[in-house]
Amino acid sequence: VWSPEMKSWAMGAGLPLLPRLLLVLGAAEWALGAQRRYTPDWPSLDSRPLPDWFDQAKFGVFVHWGVFSVPAWGSEWFWWHWKGEGSPQYQRFMSDNYPPGFSYADFGPLFTARFFDPEGWADLFQAAGAKYVVLTTKHHEGFTNWPSSVSWNWNAKDVGPHRDLVGELGTAVRKRNIRYGLYHSLFEWFHPLYLLDKKNGFKTQYFVFGKTMPELYELVNRYKPDLIWSDGDWESPDSYWNSTDFLSWLYNDSPVKDEVVVNDRWGFNCSCHHGGYYNCADKFQPSSLPNHKWEMCTSIDKRSWGYRRTMSISEVASESEIISELVQTVSLGGNYLLNIGPTKDGLIVPIFQERLLAVGKWLSINGEAIYASKPWRVQLEKNESVWYTSKESAVYAIFLNWPENGVLSLKSPKTTSATQVTMLGIQKDLKWSTNPPGGLLVYLPQLPPSALPVEFAWTIKMMGVE
Amino acid sequence: VWSPEMKSWAMGAGLPLLPRLLLVLGAAEWALGAQRRYTPDWPSLDSRPLPDWFDQAKFGVFVHWGVFSVPAWGSEWFWWHWKGEGSPQYQRFMSDNYPPGFSYADFGPLFTARFFDPEGWADLFQAAGAKYVVLTTKHHEGFTNWPSSVSWNWNAKDVGPHRDLVGELGTAVRKRNIRYGLYHSLFEWFHPLYLLDKKNGFKTQYFVFGKTMPELYELVNRYKPDLIWSDGDWESPDSYWNSTDFLSWLYNDSPVKDEVVVNDRWGFNCSCHHGGYYNCADKFQPSSLPNHKWEMCTSIDKRSWGYRRTMSISEVASESEIISELVQTVSLGGNYLLNIGPTKDGLIVPIFQERLLAVGKWLSINGEAIYASKPWRVQLEKNESVWYTSKESAVYAIFLNWPENGVLSLKSPKTTSATQVTMLGIQKDLKWSTNPPGGLLVYLPQLPPSALPVEFAWTIKMMGVE
Amino acid sequence: VWSPEMKSWAMGAGLPLLPRLLLVLGAAEWALGAQRRYTPDWPSLDSRPLPDWFDQAKFGVFVHWGVFSVPAWGSEWFWWHWKGEGSPQYQRFMSDNYPPGFSYADFGPLFTARFFDPEGWADLFQAAGAKYVVLTTKHHEGFTNWPSSVSWNWNAKDVGPHRDLVGELGTAVRKRNIRYGLYHSLFEWFHPLYLLDKKNGFKTQYFVFGKTMPELYELVNRYKPDLIWSDGDWESPDSYWNSTDFLSWLYNDSPVKDEVVVNDRWGFNCSCHHGGYYNCADKFQPSSLPNHKWEMCTSIDKRSWGYRRTMSISEVASESEIISELVQTVSLGGNYLLNIGPTKDGLIVPIFQERLLAVGKWLSINGEAIYASKPWRVQLEKNESVWYTSKESAVYAIFLNWPENGVLSLKSPKTTSATQVTMLGIQKDLKWSTNPPGGLLVYLPQLPPSALPVEFAWTIKMMGVE
Amino acid sequence: VWSPEMKSWAMGAGLPLLPRLLLVLGAAEWALGAQRRYTPDWPSLDSRPLPDWFDQAKFGVFVHWGVFSVPAWGSEWFWWHWKGEGSPQYQRFMSDNYPPGFSYADFGPLFTARFFDPEGWADLFQAAGAKYVVLTTKHHEGFTNWPSSVSWNWNAKDVGPHRDLVGELGTAVRKRNIRYGLYHSLFEWFHPLYLLDKKNGFKTQYFVFGKTMPELYELVNRYKPDLIWSDGDWESPDSYWNSTDFLSWLYNDSPVKDEVVVNDRWGFNCSCHHGGYYNCADKFQPSSLPNHKWEMCTSIDKRSWGYRRTMSISEVASESEIISELVQTVSLGGNYLLNIGPTKDGLIVPIFQERLLAVGKWLSINGEAIYASKPWRVQLEKNESVWYTSKESAVYAIFLNWPENGVLSLKSPKTTSATQVTMLGIQKDLKWSTNPPGGLLVYLPQLPPSALPVEFAWTIKMMGVE
Repeated sequence: VWSPEMKSWAMGAGLPLLPRLLLVLGAAEWALGAQRRYTPDWPSLDSRPLPDWFDQAKFGVFVHWGVFSVPAWGSEWFWWHWKGEGSPQYQRFMSDNYPPGFSYADFGPLFTARFFDPEGWADLFQAAGAKYVVLTTKHHEGFTNWPSSVSWNWNAKDVGPHRDLVGELGTAVRKRNIRYGLYHSLFEWFHPLYLLDKKNGFKTQYFVFGKTMPELYELVNRYKPDLIWSDGDWESPDSYWNSTDFLSWLYNDSPVKDEVVVNDRWGFNCSCHHGGYYNCADKFQPSSLPNHKWEMCTSIDKRSWGYRRTMSISEVASESEIISELVQTVSLGGNYLLNIGPTKDGLIVPIFQERLLAVGKWLSINGEAIYASKPWRVQLEKNESVWYTSKESAVYAIFLNWPENGVLSLKSPKTTSATQVTMLGIQKDLKWSTNPPGGLLVYLPQLPPSALPVEFAWTIKMMGVE
Repeated sequence: VWSPEMKSWAMGAGLPLLPRLLLVLGAAEWALGAQRRYTPDWPSLDSRPLPDWFDQAKFGVFVHWGVFSVPAWGSEWFWWHWKGEGSPQYQRFMSDNYPPGFSYADFGPLFTARFFDPEGWADLFQAAGAKYVVLTTKHHEGFTNWPSSVSWNWNAKDVGPHRDLVGELGTAVRKRNIRYGLYHSLFEWFHPLYLLDKKNGFKTQYFVFGKTMPELYELVNRYKPDLIWSDGDWESPDSYWNSTDFLSWLYNDSPVKDEVVVNDRWGFNCSCHHGGYYNCADKFQPSSLPNHKWEMCTSIDKRSWGYRRTMSISEVASESEIISELVQTVSLGGNYLLNIGPTKDGLIVPIFQERLLAVGKWLSINGEAIYASKPWRVQLEKNESVWYTSKESAVYAIFLNWPENGVLSLKSPKTTSATQVTMLGIQKDLKWSTNPPGGLLVYLPQLPPSALPVEFAWTIKMMGVE
Repeated sequence: VWSPEMKSWAMGAGLPLLPRLLLVLGAAEWALGAQRRYTPDWPSLDSRPLPDWFDQAKFGVFVHWGVFSVPAWGSEWFWWHWKGEGSPQYQRFMSDNYPPGFSYADFGPLFTARFFDPEGWADLFQAAGAKYVVLTTKHHEGFTNWPSSVSWNWNAKDVGPHRDLVGELGTAVRKRNIRYGLYHSLFEWFHPLYLLDKKNGFKTQYFVFGKTMPELYELVNRYKPDLIWSDGDWESPDSYWNSTDFLSWLYNDSPVKDEVVVNDRWGFNCSCHHGGYYNCADKFQPSSLPNHKWEMCTSIDKRSWGYRRTMSISEVASESEIISELVQTVSLGGNYLLNIGPTKDGLIVPIFQERLLAVGKWLSINGEAIYASKPWRVQLEKNESVWYTSKESAVYAIFLNWPENGVLSLKSPKTTSATQVTMLGIQKDLKWSTNPPGGLLVYLPQLPPSALPVEFAWTIKMMGVE
Repeated sequence: VWSPEMKSWAMGAGLPLLPRLLLVLGAAEWALGAQRRYTPDWPSLDSRPLPDWFDQAKFGVFVHWGVFSVPAWGSEWFWWHWKGEGSPQYQRFMSDNYPPGFSYADFGPLFTARFFDPEGWADLFQAAGAKYVVLTTKHHEGFTNWPSSVSWNWNAKDVGPHRDLVGELGTAVRKRNIRYGLYHSLFEWFHPLYLLDKKNGFKTQYFVFGKTMPELYELVNRYKPDLIWSDGDWESPDSYWNSTDFLSWLYNDSPVKDEVVVNDRWGFNCSCHHGGYYNCADKFQPSSLPNHKWEMCTSIDKRSWGYRRTMSISEVASESEIISELVQTVSLGGNYLLNIGPTKDGLIVPIFQERLLAVGKWLSINGEAIYASKPWRVQLEKNESVWYTSKESAVYAIFLNWPENGVLSLKSPKTTSATQVTMLGIQKDLKWSTNPPGGLLVYLPQLPPSALPVEFAWTIKMMGVE
């Protein structure tokens, strides 16, 4: 096991950490103090309360960036489709565009990040209203966006950008009080040690202790993430990945033990069952209120997480699709993590800027109903595309379609003598009346389009309803 | 002069044309027929009526594409700023990103046009409602987007794309009955023969007869353009450029003599004074109705005509800005030529797609007031942002701001007993009443935002007004 | 014709020259002075005496350098074999090593000349004993190694080296009193204007007046060559090439009229018949003494003139092969022009250095029998591999094989009472006796190998023989 | 320790081996058999007799090939001089020739090995008379020329050549019965784990067990080398490098335990003291007969082991220098390992071919005095440049200078009645007489240069001398 000396030394020295088996074995003499300690098993780990900041944040930006941003074609699974699956389409793309023998590693030096401006990115994410940002520190390709000591010459400092992308973005984001999360893929499609373990039926852990664990310890000690977004877990059990050991260290002794949040991808038996909050599947969207904190991750480019040069506007989520999804997610208790893929030269293309700023503009009016909100007792007003949230004594009804007659019918709220109705972004109270079958009728203001507070998804705020 | 034999031979053979001084001189024996012939002087050339199609077209798409799309930084004037002006900013860009000694010509092989899909581009331009498309066949950099015989190894067939960009786009565009125009720069910043002529005070014409003329004849004979968008004329008089000779051939004897349209950039004394329609300055917008057909050209990227990788959304014209400008231009009798810059690999980025499609969507409702329209006796309803157009007996009032009270006040039209008022995109007639100070008040329909035919710039159509 | 004004202007201004048809025609009013003038026809031109320096020089170095040095595979005819002939071997080389669509022009930027050190080259050529150096200013590929005004962006200043290779080498060579010759190919495999003329059965001369002539005038006026090594003439007659016109200007009025030497490749009826000295075919070696001054050109790499990366030592001419050939050539009245191909980065590889220095070392001892020598009345002592040269009253016998018995038998010289015999490189007189059948027997010194003046091809110098 | 199961599994499976600390610990139950076993300490390891083949081989070819072959400038220590030392000269080379931020890893994809023909190389080495070949499998730069599982994406299979260079050359060499040796650098200038260990005063061994040991086991198990040429040991003791452990496995249990030979670079206290044969310093040449088998390694390019593009002929060892050194080395009991550096595209340039073939040609005559020879009781005939070797009853005197008078004086051999003297390459016996002060006078044959068996370093063979 990791000794406390080891950890403090590594933290102090800012040096890379190595797996426990490489260390002289030492007896861990834990001084059991006031704080509760977690044991490396799911019942204990799952009992840890989720730090508050995450549920309050509601909206984050996901960034997929790596060597896959160089071909920028197909998706971030480019290498797998080409060499793992042997897709004829990908093979043809390569033979059409590159010299014979060109390998994926040859893309490395072309990942220049030439125009990467972390301050500019962070400004954009702030203007988008994001409360957290999650960056791919290493995707399944194995290229690390920080100078990892166990990925020599296959990382962003040695090859391509020649910068510490993870560190630079983190610094910029935190200056703006945005939380910083690190995406990390446990497995790597083609790492020889992973392939060896796989061949051995995952009875050996050469890869885990030679690569995965050193990386995770290094990431935590060096960048002190608020969130670890684990991925790539599905081919082997958590016992192979050493997940519970790592998490118990993370929760008990790591420099981020109090604030760190993790997701649920820690082994094929884990997703939707163990860990911190749940992602379940990519783009997973429940139909009713789950009983565990969750997050929906999705991408503005509907076909890819990584940048695709050939992305067409028809494949880009519209502003109303994005905001509808955000509203629905938050109403159902989730967080919404919206992805963009920067280019190989470090730019966020205008269409992504436009979408993020549209979210930010919407949230500048309607954020009150989103940030730090809680699900209400009813989430969805059926057939009406009205989603509820609540905060303290306020109930918020966000309606996606403006009713033809200008009267919004809400069946679920029970009015009282103290009931007061407003629309976010508009000063005056709205008129309302009780609805014979229950609930209330809200008389919407008659305004020219340019006078509406937002273009879609308007929020009715109700005080004094039950 | 060009002999008729020469022309027919060149046309028949599909071969490059060379300047007249290289040819055996021959007496031109013109059989003067029924058709009027133009002499090579402005009074004669300016007297030619503009072919009808141009005024009817109203909306075109401009495409700036060339080697400047490779650095894709600053603007399409990259080479000039770097080497002509010696801008420290451009020099620094080069030294920061390229090896010492890297020249502009070294960008050539990187202009791959890898994903260039002329059918896809043409589909997009059609969906945008464009009635003509103008492509840069050669910008001031001198690189020809077709296999010119006087630009060997500095053209898109020999270097970079290895395709005939001019030919391929033309074929695709014409399949969709869109007119095809060719932008052509007379001068080239750094051509040694141009520099020689310049040094000689433009008393020699080595460049004109060795480069410019062969190019123009070749372009006309090979691609049969509907429009020649001349540029780069300003440093020397039309006599240097041999412009009137060329235009007289173009109007009298070229394969496009009946349909071709040209602009006004044929020498420094020409712009806004001679030629076909007038562009005057780039982005020129008159404040009142001109007495000569004109065209406003502008670019979605406000800072550049060529693609810029670092373009930010704040520098991109919004949908409402574009449509407002289109409306104003047409109301004042102009055509609107809206520019996009494709990437070096032949893609039109999503933000440009989105803007073009927005125009197309708007025109699908309001095109009736635009295409083939004529200016009305009044163009602008002052203080109201209402622009008029007309077609036959109909008068169209396009209003940019929806009035707060839902009543649009139009002071200029004189109502009659037959007056009938509708809104394009809405079936029912609108109510109206006479306006005490003159004109009429139109009672706009009260509709939820989603039921409006368009999001901005709504068109009121009036029959029976004067 | 070129007017004298034109010529002096062009020379004074250092500006590019353009073909006569682009100029105002002017009658040349020549004040016939003391100097004889040549008319533009072969009888007149052929009557010009060859400037003395050339016959005295005897040994020169030929340099083939161009874009073909980039693939450096096959030979300098790479482009032709690949695209002209469509050789499967060359096509495979390209598809194996370059991306699809890679063109010959794409090699341009890779021709870096990074390490090109003209002073170092000139030192080497001097150490090799060369009295003249001939550089390819433009090979059949059309790429000019100087900043030609009629090859914009396809020359060494705009692309690749970004230097004036022709100028820099000339300056360095002349500092060492070495004469400077310019190789120039009249035709270009793929120039569109040449292809047009060819298609027209060479009845048009677009290419000649648009490219070839301006180049030759520019080369002469700018670099003032001692020698023009014309090539690429064979597909069309001298009348097409305008050769006699050019030569008459060169001989009468050019800045090098007194000293310039040319070869015989000026049209398909010319080689071995007209011009200055004769090259006849490449590597041509006559078997008996020709009656016209000639030059043998050959290459150290037996398979190529341009650099080949895959050159094997078995394809490299040995020192003894080279020196034997030099001796034979000079004995038969020729000059010997020995070729090397530098690399794309401007280096002369060690094997070429070694060979050139071996020649230089040999000439440092035996140069007396070579430089400024004349053929003797007998050239070759049959069956003995002994070649004769002479200078004033001295006769030189260069023997390639050391006789087993140490006695060299020379049948041709007639001894006299004044006959004196030495070996170049050895101080003492050699013993000799008359040979009964005629001539003399020379008793060679008995020396250990290390004491011999050279390793092969020893020179016997005879005074007082007939 | 490595368990026997582990070794046989790894050998059978052809899979990468990992350091012992990564393995489940297992008790090694050795059945002590007939064969002697070595313990992991120098007294035991040094006691192992050197396998016979090595002393008999005498002449080998050394090959330095790696990413350093890409810049091919300065030497194979390029990276160190540039980034370790910060040499201004190297920094300038980079800034002059590459874009800002270009890293050493960026050279990787340019190491193409495009023309690498292992059969051709092996033919050349055979023609050179080499009995063994040693290839750099990994130099201090850390790039592995085989697909190592602990150097992912920094090896010749993943990057650049995309081939197993170590495997391919081995196969070709062995087909010709040439022994195959593997050069391997223990340390790596810039490996983060090595730097970590160094910072820790070499008290940790992260690098050794994470990189060095897995590599050595993998190399041995996969390629079964005849020789391991260890290097890069000098910064830390053998205990850090785990050398004695590795060697005991190599000598006791590896698949090459019977035939493998190693050198002496296994820790800073080792060179010239422990291991197999001794290299001592690079290019080390003793002045008298050592008492331990040794090898002199040297390079044809006197300034570099790796290929240098700018190598000049003056820096290339001449044929006589090389052969003199070979003779001296063998006379003093050493082996001679002569180095060449192939180009990045896999070629051995002609000058190296020429030198190697010259050695081969010399050995084809004089090999009898070299291969499998033993030092004689006298090595050098002082002041005479005569070196002795012996084989069984023959004594060989190799003289470097041909005596002026044709009589070679040998003072050391004692003649007998049976004394017989010949020259290798010449059929007839030579005359000799006793030398008054001792030894004998050999009357050399009087032959023209072309009839001598070799050009320098002739061998006198004496039978019946003492």
